[in-house]
Amino acid sequence: MAEQKFEVLGLGNAIVDVIAAAEDDLLERENLNKGSMTLVDEQGAALLYEAMGSTTITSGGSAANTIVGLASFGIRSAFIGKLRSDDAGHAFSHDIRSSGVHFETPFAVDGPATARCLILVTPDGERTMNTYLGACQNLGPDDVDENLVRSASVLYLEGYLWDPPAAKQAFVKAAGIAHAAGNRVALTLSDPFCVDRYRDEFLDLIRTKTVDIVFANQHELRSLYQTADFETAVNAFREENILGIVTRSEHGSMVVTRDETWSVPASPIERLVDTTGAGDLFAAGFLAGLVRGCELKDAARLGGLAAAEVIQHYGARPLVRLDDLAAENGLALPL
Amino acid sequence: MAEQKFEVLGLGNAIVDVIAAAEDDLLERENLNKGSMTLVDEQGAALLYEAMGSTTITSGGSAANTIVGLASFGIRSAFIGKLRSDDAGHAFSHDIRSSGVHFETPFAVDGPATARCLILVTPDGERTMNTYLGACQNLGPDDVDENLVRSASVLYLEGYLWDPPAAKQAFVKAAGIAHAAGNRVALTLSDPFCVDRYRDEFLDLIRTKTVDIVFANQHELRSLYQTADFETAVNAFREENILGIVTRSEHGSMVVTRDETWSVPASPIERLVDTTGAGDLFAAGFLAGLVRGCELKDAARLGGLAAAEVIQHYGARPLVRLDDLAAENGLALPL
Repeated sequence: MAEQKFEVLGLGNAIVDVIAAAEDDLLERENLNKGSMTLVDEQGAALLYEAMGSTTITSGGSAANTIVGLASFGIRSAFIGKLRSDDAGHAFSHDIRSSGVHFETPFAVDGPATARCLILVTPDGERTMNTYLGACQNLGPDDVDENLVRSASVLYLEGYLWDPPAAKQAFVKAAGIAHAAGNRVALTLSDPFCVDRYRDEFLDLIRTKTVDIVFANQHELRSLYQTADFETAVNAFREENILGIVTRSEHGSMVVTRDETWSVPASPIERLVDTTGAGDLFAAGFLAGLVRGCELKDAARLGGLAAAEVIQHYGARPLVRLDDLAAENGLALPL
Repeated sequence: MAEQKFEVLGLGNAIVDVIAAAEDDLLERENLNKGSMTLVDEQGAALLYEAMGSTTITSGGSAANTIVGLASFGIRSAFIGKLRSDDAGHAFSHDIRSSGVHFETPFAVDGPATARCLILVTPDGERTMNTYLGACQNLGPDDVDENLVRSASVLYLEGYLWDPPAAKQAFVKAAGIAHAAGNRVALTLSDPFCVDRYRDEFLDLIRTKTVDIVFANQHELRSLYQTADFETAVNAFREENILGIVTRSEHGSMVVTRDETWSVPASPIERLVDTTGAGDLFAAGFLAGLVRGCELKDAARLGGLAAAEVIQHYGARPLVRLDDLAAENGLALPL
């Protein structure tokens, strides 16, 4: 097979993050699930924004963060996601393209505004997310460029795509094209409440081999198999006979296949500031290692390294070149 | 005299900061003065934005940063500055009000967009600023609310107000009202190139006692007196017979009066990330101490503490409560 134009293509919700420090009592007053993502409508977003403190605005979106992380590792990357042609949309487009990512999805010229995620960061570094999907609701199968999907070795999809109705169809269409071209398809389960909303469909995606690689954190995995016991969930995951990756915050990560399981410790950090993007950047590091043919344990180490970078500052996109960071830590990627 | 409604009122350019990491060679290609502020027009800002990497957007503006810092110290604070009623303007307004600052300057409903400052942060943590003044050009004497100026013990003005033509008149009007009400007037010299543009006018403000308190960093002070020798500049500053404060980055600060000079070391930091706002937050800490009757040395220590907080993360506004930080460092403010 000839070398492919892109190593990873992401399909996801294109979202601008609006981040503020918050005390725990604000979460209680607003009745928010700490550490999770809640969908809000435009008015709900406006009300919560009023209650928030001074904000920092950066581009976000789970799969988009992963793709920007991959580009920072020097991986040839592309993204598909829907923006409105407003200030936030133009900023998102600027940021992802200036990160070296191929991004050509046409702007919506009318309809809802570019999606925003209002993120409350509590003193423990945990983030609680409230998403107004806006223009993401217009992402549909027509936005899936067939040639682009065929041209990427790995297609990376986020579970959050199940929230906007038409995006699910874009997801299924893209996965079909990728597999027909002999490419691999990866999925992140996104959020335990998202898993709760679409559990049967996610299990179906796994069991029909619509996806080959699945990223989950410990909460999402327990939600997937409806068990409080982590070991039970991991055993069920192993039986799926896919390439599974489980992230466990400060306890590191696990790579789970039917035949083998590897545990990799978390990378050390100086100070936890904002966990936003930890899982997204873990996926970036892991996929960077995977597409460059690293051993799975080293891919997980690269994931841990990228996650450690992003949780030490506000925002879900890396502030340093991840290829440099990898090299400094003895994990330089093969070309 | 009855207790005044506000302890400090700031008058300044209301600006949204657009921050990106940059290598030194980008500064060279764009012909930018490292560490300084350059004015750019709308097209110049658009071209530089295209050349910048992924951005973090926060509210900024020198005097506005100081006023938000004061509010974070628990000081009753207000601000006057001109915004356009666009997304950036609404974000600035949200941020400063959510920080506890009284801010009621009416939005411009047409004309240029809300001002933006494109900030390039190099690996040494130094920031290089490029400002499109936009709506700030519409700040004028009519925006100076006389009752508000009278109601604040200290009026804080930025030298940058000399750039938009009508703002200078607002500055002079506000200073006159403040002095007539028996309040004090403070000025920051803002930037060495700004001093170069308006040296004679700034010296005139000092020598006519239009201002009583002057903040300068070492570069601004040397520019004011057109000397390469720091000691010569400090001696000239002393002769002005005002309350002078000189900031010297990692070498701490000096309080300079005609009769006495105190040197105060810089607060220790773990990691220099982005120097944006260092001078602004120093002024916040110093003024907080001053209006609460601390000794001048302790006021300078409070300034150093606030500056140290803001240079350890992106953005020019504090991410923690400065009154808590002061208390943790044995410098709790008197009520």
